[in-house]
Amino acid sequence: MILCLCPSPAIDVTYHVDALHVGESTRVRSLTRRAGGKAVNVACVLHAVGADGHVLAPVGGPAGAEFAELLRATGVPADLVPDPAPTRTTIAVVESGGQASVLLEPAVTRDWPALLARAEALIPAAEVVVVSGSMPEGAPPDALATVIALARAAGRPIIVDTSGPALLQALDAGATLVKPNAAELAQVAPEQPDPVLAARTLATRYAGTVVVASLGADGAVLAGPDGACHARPGAALTGNPTGAGDALVAGLARGLAAGHAVPELLAESVALSAAAVLHPFAGRLDPAEYARQRAAVTVRALQGQP
Amino acid sequence: MILCLCPSPAIDVTYHVDALHVGESTRVRSLTRRAGGKAVNVACVLHAVGADGHVLAPVGGPAGAEFAELLRATGVPADLVPDPAPTRTTIAVVESGGQASVLLEPAVTRDWPALLARAEALIPAAEVVVVSGSMPEGAPPDALATVIALARAAGRPIIVDTSGPALLQALDAGATLVKPNAAELAQVAPEQPDPVLAARTLATRYAGTVVVASLGADGAVLAGPDGACHARPGAALTGNPTGAGDALVAGLARGLAAGHAVPELLAESVALSAAAVLHPFAGRLDPAEYARQRAAVTVRALQGQP
Repeated sequence: MILCLCPSPAIDVTYHVDALHVGESTRVRSLTRRAGGKAVNVACVLHAVGADGHVLAPVGGPAGAEFAELLRATGVPADLVPDPAPTRTTIAVVESGGQASVLLEPAVTRDWPALLARAEALIPAAEVVVVSGSMPEGAPPDALATVIALARAAGRPIIVDTSGPALLQALDAGATLVKPNAAELAQVAPEQPDPVLAARTLATRYAGTVVVASLGADGAVLAGPDGACHARPGAALTGNPTGAGDALVAGLARGLAAGHAVPELLAESVALSAAAVLHPFAGRLDPAEYARQRAAVTVRALQGQP
Repeated sequence: MILCLCPSPAIDVTYHVDALHVGESTRVRSLTRRAGGKAVNVACVLHAVGADGHVLAPVGGPAGAEFAELLRATGVPADLVPDPAPTRTTIAVVESGGQASVLLEPAVTRDWPALLARAEALIPAAEVVVVSGSMPEGAPPDALATVIALARAAGRPIIVDTSGPALLQALDAGATLVKPNAAELAQVAPEQPDPVLAARTLATRYAGTVVVASLGADGAVLAGPDGACHARPGAALTGNPTGAGDALVAGLARGLAAGHAVPELLAESVALSAAAVLHPFAGRLDPAEYARQRAAVTVRALQGQP
């Protein structure tokens, strides 16, 4: 089982509109509602490729009940921990021209200890632990470090996909692997504008942690104690980039659980991410497309010191 | 009891943001959620002044359960009829500079006959019937005319606040009173750009119906078989114009239920609307402010033919 801890779940609503009229009223033509949050997307991708992703998330209020129902409909197993704070909503307003404006409600918890206790109970049964997304308001400042310590104490690899101070906390606490994108790398290694060099610099600085940098259409770089390599998809892809990073994390978690080594691990993950880009919904992909992408990915080792 | 039929209820969500970033992500600083829909606002205003407003609305899905909970918290009594279609949400994004952008999900019903049956059962107990808001997708084309016919058959006055083709249907079906604003008047009487003249023209054309035109800061005009009059608040008011029209309708319904005649009816209604503008939330007002506004309203009869 791959435990996907989602500290800040959301109901992800997409509004399709002709055009967004700022300062006026806009009629929504159609809408979709789904269980969202980065770790939920990770678990959905794992589910789509037959791996055993398991969501752990706090849920509260009427939106929490709807979140549980929407997640149940996906078939992804989950432990949902009641929280007095209501589950948040995110709204993506997509105009007919394709432009998207996203409104992000704040994620809030009022019972972090309950979630932590459930995480502690589940970690021993997990082959890999994934923590994806931001930490909610109301969680203690060291919340992420505590989860990492629990995984380490249980001897379980832990992958963290977050940003800003939480990413630094994950590096300091010795996460097994972190997966920043270029913008997130720039936040924590501002002295190194090249994301490939920034990833290698961080991997050297935090020698206990593998750094995988997602580079959008350019694939991903993995930097760790045994060197660095860069995996690229076989062709430039156009599609839905939302959730591509989550699919990359799903690939890394599945590969770690299966004991795959670099560069196989990275190539599989980039292929999974490419297949996710080609699917219109975040957290979904076509396994046949994954097989095609896997055959096309190229990997090369990066030489020298960062 | 004043029956407030809300064909298109909504959860009204207000997002407070620093600035709306079109094409990017915007963080929501704080938010409020309330039971909304024009007839709900009418019933809330009636409740605030001690009158017996009673909501009738379809509700569906998790949002319908939340709507019921939010409405219960207001203390306003309601008959909520289960509908297979989920209750919609509206989102008002209010920037720190005050600019508001509103996203309106479509209202949908999949069991209009159930709502109509409940309306038929409740109308005999109502002193006045109010229908406020748009008709939902899925309602039959003559839905509003049917409700008006039920009220007329039971000998109950019926006030309709709606727009476009539904407003014309209400006029054709012989609603007791309709309450368009200037923009809604322009839709149904485009040949007459002056709203005061447009209201008088419509009242002459549809002799069975009293037309009350809301004119924003300029109060309201009432045109009916016994002539026309114009009521103005005592001073220009600044505040929250959302729901001012709903408060006007509440005043008209309460006055009709109490048997008040013109111009008393109109003066009370304009005072109620003014008190609502001075309250930060739609559907709320301070009764003491209403008393002050009532003393300040001026009414003058309009002479001549429209």
